[in-house]
Amino acid sequence: MQLTRAADYAVRVMIYLAQLPGETRALLPDLAHATDAPESFLSKVLQSLAHAKLISSRRGKLGGFAILPAGHCATLLQIIEAIDGPICLNVCLQGGKGCERRSACPAHPVWARAQRAMLEVLMSATVTSMATNALPSGSVSLPFA
Amino acid sequence: MQLTRAADYAVRVMIYLAQLPGETRALLPDLAHATDAPESFLSKVLQSLAHAKLISSRRGKLGGFAILPAGHCATLLQIIEAIDGPICLNVCLQGGKGCERRSACPAHPVWARAQRAMLEVLMSATVTSMATNALPSGSVSLPFA
Repeated sequence: MQLTRAADYAVRVMIYLAQLPGETRALLPDLAHATDAPESFLSKVLQSLAHAKLISSRRGKLGGFAILPAGHCATLLQIIEAIDGPICLNVCLQGGKGCERRSACPAHPVWARAQRAMLEVLMSATVTSMATNALPSGSVSLPFA
Repeated sequence: MQLTRAADYAVRVMIYLAQLPGETRALLPDLAHATDAPESFLSKVLQSLAHAKLISSRRGKLGGFAILPAGHCATLLQIIEAIDGPICLNVCLQGGKGCERRSACPAHPVWARAQRAMLEVLMSATVTSMATNALPSGSVSLPFA
């Protein structure tokens, strides 16, 4: 029961992109360095984030990756789900087919409560709030600056 | 980020054993049937639960599996950890080596809060409390009865 490395890197890269000034675009090697992630692996993570419309990806000389407005507002949960799909603490909590034992299973409501408690925290933190917290108070220095 | 099948079966089997009257011992085929688990897989789960001293395992004609006092008091978290080891929502929360980025990472405190919220729920439910909830109120019928 652990977050995937891909989702962990996605969160790191989103916070980093949110801290860049204005229209700044970042290149893959810079992002890999900033997030301590292997370039080839991070490249796939960035594709997923672009697919979820949380970042934009542009090729060419003036290309690179930039955060989109939806990315600034995204919660930690949205980033994880953009990479790994819906979080489901136990198979019995999956929507749709679910689990046949559900109605009689005394553990089911506990799994549901545990998942809800975790998701509430993950929904409470946005990229903007985390990026702002990361900057030293009173500091004007920014990544790449 | 999902509970393993082994931990799920462990929780099912612990609740089932807790519902058996007094000194009743259950055999592997009965437990596999009651928990909808494959016998060979459940056998390994039962070994881990016995190793954690949550159940006893006895061979022979009068053998089988029975819950121990510590098993009755065990929380959902203790059962999961007996099977899968310590829960760690993200690698950065692992004790010991931890993560070098921790002190500067604005996501770290959110991971920690999310994990704490989930663990609090998993620690709040004991085998006894779940087993009791599972019995129809006023019913005297028990598994195997």
